[in-house]
Amino acid sequence: MTGQSLNAETRARLETVSVASLATLLFKRGLRNQVIQNVRPVAPKGRNMVGPAFTLRYMPAREDRNTLDVFRDPEHKQRKAIETCPPGHVLLIDSRKDARAASAGDILVSRLMMRGAAGIVTDGGFRDAMRIGELDIPAYHQRPSSPTNLTLHEAIEINGPIGCGDAPVFPGDVIVGDDDSVIVIPAHLADEIAEEAVEMTAYEDFVIEQVRAGASIIGLYPCTREAHRTAFEQWRKARGR
Amino acid sequence: MTGQSLNAETRARLETVSVASLATLLFKRGLRNQVIQNVRPVAPKGRNMVGPAFTLRYMPAREDRNTLDVFRDPEHKQRKAIETCPPGHVLLIDSRKDARAASAGDILVSRLMMRGAAGIVTDGGFRDAMRIGELDIPAYHQRPSSPTNLTLHEAIEINGPIGCGDAPVFPGDVIVGDDDSVIVIPAHLADEIAEEAVEMTAYEDFVIEQVRAGASIIGLYPCTREAHRTAFEQWRKARGR
Amino acid sequence: MTGQSLNAETRARLETVSVASLATLLFKRGLRNQVIQNVRPVAPKGRNMVGPAFTLRYMPAREDRNTLDVFRDPEHKQRKAIETCPPGHVLLIDSRKDARAASAGDILVSRLMMRGAAGIVTDGGFRDAMRIGELDIPAYHQRPSSPTNLTLHEAIEINGPIGCGDAPVFPGDVIVGDDDSVIVIPAHLADEIAEEAVEMTAYEDFVIEQVRAGASIIGLYPCTREAHRTAFEQWRKARGR
Amino acid sequence: MTGQSLNAETRARLETVSVASLATLLFKRGLRNQVIQNVRPVAPKGRNMVGPAFTLRYMPAREDRNTLDVFRDPEHKQRKAIETCPPGHVLLIDSRKDARAASAGDILVSRLMMRGAAGIVTDGGFRDAMRIGELDIPAYHQRPSSPTNLTLHEAIEINGPIGCGDAPVFPGDVIVGDDDSVIVIPAHLADEIAEEAVEMTAYEDFVIEQVRAGASIIGLYPCTREAHRTAFEQWRKARGR
Amino acid sequence: MTGQSLNAETRARLETVSVASLATLLFKRGLRNQVIQNVRPVAPKGRNMVGPAFTLRYMPAREDRNTLDVFRDPEHKQRKAIETCPPGHVLLIDSRKDARAASAGDILVSRLMMRGAAGIVTDGGFRDAMRIGELDIPAYHQRPSSPTNLTLHEAIEINGPIGCGDAPVFPGDVIVGDDDSVIVIPAHLADEIAEEAVEMTAYEDFVIEQVRAGASIIGLYPCTREAHRTAFEQWRKARGR
Amino acid sequence: MTGQSLNAETRARLETVSVASLATLLFKRGLRNQVIQNVRPVAPKGRNMVGPAFTLRYMPAREDRNTLDVFRDPEHKQRKAIETCPPGHVLLIDSRKDARAASAGDILVSRLMMRGAAGIVTDGGFRDAMRIGELDIPAYHQRPSSPTNLTLHEAIEINGPIGCGDAPVFPGDVIVGDDDSVIVIPAHLADEIAEEAVEMTAYEDFVIEQVRAGASIIGLYPCTREAHRTAFEQWRKARGR
Repeated sequence: MTGQSLNAETRARLETVSVASLATLLFKRGLRNQVIQNVRPVAPKGRNMVGPAFTLRYMPAREDRNTLDVFRDPEHKQRKAIETCPPGHVLLIDSRKDARAASAGDILVSRLMMRGAAGIVTDGGFRDAMRIGELDIPAYHQRPSSPTNLTLHEAIEINGPIGCGDAPVFPGDVIVGDDDSVIVIPAHLADEIAEEAVEMTAYEDFVIEQVRAGASIIGLYPCTREAHRTAFEQWRKARGR
Repeated sequence: MTGQSLNAETRARLETVSVASLATLLFKRGLRNQVIQNVRPVAPKGRNMVGPAFTLRYMPAREDRNTLDVFRDPEHKQRKAIETCPPGHVLLIDSRKDARAASAGDILVSRLMMRGAAGIVTDGGFRDAMRIGELDIPAYHQRPSSPTNLTLHEAIEINGPIGCGDAPVFPGDVIVGDDDSVIVIPAHLADEIAEEAVEMTAYEDFVIEQVRAGASIIGLYPCTREAHRTAFEQWRKARGR
Repeated sequence: MTGQSLNAETRARLETVSVASLATLLFKRGLRNQVIQNVRPVAPKGRNMVGPAFTLRYMPAREDRNTLDVFRDPEHKQRKAIETCPPGHVLLIDSRKDARAASAGDILVSRLMMRGAAGIVTDGGFRDAMRIGELDIPAYHQRPSSPTNLTLHEAIEINGPIGCGDAPVFPGDVIVGDDDSVIVIPAHLADEIAEEAVEMTAYEDFVIEQVRAGASIIGLYPCTREAHRTAFEQWRKARGR
Repeated sequence: MTGQSLNAETRARLETVSVASLATLLFKRGLRNQVIQNVRPVAPKGRNMVGPAFTLRYMPAREDRNTLDVFRDPEHKQRKAIETCPPGHVLLIDSRKDARAASAGDILVSRLMMRGAAGIVTDGGFRDAMRIGELDIPAYHQRPSSPTNLTLHEAIEINGPIGCGDAPVFPGDVIVGDDDSVIVIPAHLADEIAEEAVEMTAYEDFVIEQVRAGASIIGLYPCTREAHRTAFEQWRKARGR
Repeated sequence: MTGQSLNAETRARLETVSVASLATLLFKRGLRNQVIQNVRPVAPKGRNMVGPAFTLRYMPAREDRNTLDVFRDPEHKQRKAIETCPPGHVLLIDSRKDARAASAGDILVSRLMMRGAAGIVTDGGFRDAMRIGELDIPAYHQRPSSPTNLTLHEAIEINGPIGCGDAPVFPGDVIVGDDDSVIVIPAHLADEIAEEAVEMTAYEDFVIEQVRAGASIIGLYPCTREAHRTAFEQWRKARGR
Repeated sequence: MTGQSLNAETRARLETVSVASLATLLFKRGLRNQVIQNVRPVAPKGRNMVGPAFTLRYMPAREDRNTLDVFRDPEHKQRKAIETCPPGHVLLIDSRKDARAASAGDILVSRLMMRGAAGIVTDGGFRDAMRIGELDIPAYHQRPSSPTNLTLHEAIEINGPIGCGDAPVFPGDVIVGDDDSVIVIPAHLADEIAEEAVEMTAYEDFVIEQVRAGASIIGLYPCTREAHRTAFEQWRKARGR
């Protein structure tokens, strides 16, 4: 159940498609709950976040176990997660959808960026959110939240299976985030989904062009007319897609 | 109960006033719930959306009735609504306030724009929200939502009475949206409300000027002093309003 | 229980630190609920809002007591609060976390700005939010809300103790807002917290520099290694902090 | 704004009618929010609670002001409210709809009962709820809640205007609770509403009898047929109502 | 899309099985959202409610369309629905999950009972709930709610497709309620589901007996051991099931 | 972090005190969040549930991993948890506060009872709740929920640290439930808390007697008068407590 390496071609493909397209392809396979609900980019990056999931689970904080000095422990799981998340991976935090205290702040996210992580997601909130938004690493949360994580959260497990925004996440699942939202692709489906998504995106780009030129969506989206199919083939050839 | 045409002068007036002013005028007539709660512009447009309501109602999706191939049906109600919403109208979708799946995406909203609609509103969420925000058509929702609408919604009725964000909407009611929110003006009140709102806006513009010049709001807002009334009349004359 | 003056040095210090740092220092003293939950800047100002609290409490509106003509009363508590909030203070409104109707609009906030207030916060919503965001006064709310406050709120008490976003607020407590959120510092702690926060901020600025230069957070944040302590002392000296 | 005495005849009448009937009569007068939302009897009593409102307001608890020893203060407002609520009155607690900590427990409610209060209502929860349910005093809350009130609530004001379950409550308003819910009748309307409610109840009792005998509700409820009107008059005479 | 008759044998079978069993059988067919969420019996009846769905849809009430005198209209849809719901059917009301105002009261439910309906369900609340609980007709709701339905609801459509507690309901679907909850069986599946549920229930009754006699659930529930299968066959024979 | 045995004397003491008293004693030690929020007895038992915690964690269900045949696996974690929970322990299920699908049903709870468990708690809901309420084992949940757990939950971990109703739970913590709610006592505090709670309960029983005899709570609760202290000592002696 540990993270697995992500095929370079698959990663490249996933950088070019939308979370919406991926959601439709997973829906087609009977997976209806893979979008992490109610998170948004701290600041839109204009590019996709892609990487295998590395996870951190929070449980409710018991006051006597979560005083400020716990951070002096070099093994504290929140800090440990930051220092062990592999480069290219996305750190996902299960904050039980509770944004009343922070999941992390700009120092930790800066460190994660320096270590080469692909991004960070919490279904809670980040403190120092304004500054995190300025960093060169995609970050997604529910809303800014300034109280220290110790107020409500205790980091309890690194890289186990978690829930994040009501989506199931297993370490090694492939995470994709765009400027709208974040989705969890089960590891074993990543390659085929990525390939299919590229195809789907080509067709949708064609559709948008047609629609902007005045076409009706009936028969075009989805394609049920031979004429559209032919036009699309020519369009692809012309653009080398 | 079908849409009615909107007086050109009324439309022009409604383009110059705020939803807040309209809400106050409806409140004065005993209508307290006409603002669509908890929706916001996908991207602020800096101008008002105005048009009669054309509606679409969603019900919870039953899985066997909502597989991807339903979209191949040229009569599918979601697509049909897009293709039949009259130019100049606003399409309002009753998504039961559920933003966990999309109400529509950028292809459909692009088509709606091409067909000349005045705008689109859902009390759920749009997928491809970033792209919808770039289109030249006002769109309002709760939050971005990437899963396909089939995941949770079945389009069941076109242009009947609906609820949208806890507001009652009848086809033909006049919808106005600004950069803050969206309001539903009952069709039979639109002309008189529009006229009154222009008056009210003139006075409020005057008030803002006075306040920025140092005036107290007591006696000025609302106007209970003769001196303010006189000053306002002069102000109007000077500005031709 | 009336407002007390805020030490100029403390005010200056609080303008340079983050709400997150202040939250940690209050947490250290056993105060875990001082951040006003679920409010955000109407528009980020890039500078802190600092001032003693001046409060206004709303209760649910009974229709017969809240018709539009109540605003003709020069003693109406909403308007009175605007006209009596002392310069340099922050007006905090207890709207019972209900944003379905406005707490105030741009005319009142403009007047408050002209009177020299330091800012305004509601745990409900503002109408005319787009315009309030353009004013030169920090304002925080849950979300834009266009219905007049009379729809749901009756202003009932000026400058008593209130709840705001689940935080306790006493008149004279020191309020600090940054681009993420707002916090309530009990009046008697303001001076010592401000001083300590400046120290903490210096260290965190040092940490960020180290992290961006490639340092691990273990042993550095918090500081448990002598080497870091020494480096920090030199860093401070070099920067005169 | 202090409690006023409740007419004995009005009290007697209000003991015989349902909260639903009272809600309809207030609705007729434009008052739509007088039912205290989301509270229920701790244990149904099979009789109405009737009395003028005596209020207690809670604000969010700041930890340093709410340690267990505050109860040693004979002036602590929670205990003071219990000891000063006049006989025949109903104590209403504004707990900001937060039932995560108790509003009161069985010792205080027992004392209130001994002092002759007519009942107690909180929009939060009671601890020792099972035992409170066995006492001979009506009590209404959201749900049982065992944590001491100090955990989240500080009693801050006795007998001022409050919100309770989103309803406005002024001291002296007349409170009526049945086995379903609780309603707030503005003091100045109590006599006329009580009288009208008795009339309405007589008619509804007649209607129920007719319906159980097989009558259609059309024309009967509400009464639009002369025949029903006549039958009702005879029914009343026969029963002396 | 109108109601269809329910096979007598199917009805009889559905009276003997639990909603939980039915939910499992629908889950097996890919239908995961057929239980009406968050409703409970007004008073447990100790027997199942079974019948085809007859529906009523509410939309948000606009104040000028929902004054008390609308009930004088013999065609008012709420009253009309009561008077036209066919005997043996269950009336389901889509109240948009809003229990702040009533969906119906004891007079209407009494009439429905007299007309031979099989039951009534709302995803809102009933007024006069205590009295409805005493009637000889199963009724399910979220919680008691005393305000008249006009406060928030306008009855707008009879016997169309609706959502109820997030479940999709089409007229003629078969509704089953037990003392825990209510489920919607698509009309075309009712016969086969009923038959399968009787089988399933026989096995589960056997399992409960075995468990109470000390058996482990492993291999027994579900049945994966030949020995259990044989024992079950003998058990059935012995009991004639 | 595995369960530890519970001192017999401590268990006996905890059977005689209320969750409210225990909550106060934990509050005194700075632990404010140990009550499991928003759960209630499926059916009140009139006696306490006491035992060390044995835990089960659910994560969101991915459809392809949670088909009905997973229960054929003798190692399925839900069933395994039932078969391994030690006698005298309380099984606590972290259902992420999601009651839209069941956490367990009557067959599993019956088996747990047969195996000698002290009780079961979920922050979700039970199916077959009516029948579970009739079993001789205390069970607590949010509300009845008929859909199979596979609809939303995957059992992922046995006896690790969890959150339950926003309370932190470690295996071996001592769980106490009464007819109002359930509390989590950290293992290392159980003995001293139990002893103190018995003392506290004696005093509160004395207080209740005094109050019912007409005493004021001022000076009595808490005890600040010598006279009350003396009376209590005599009361204890007289009753042998």
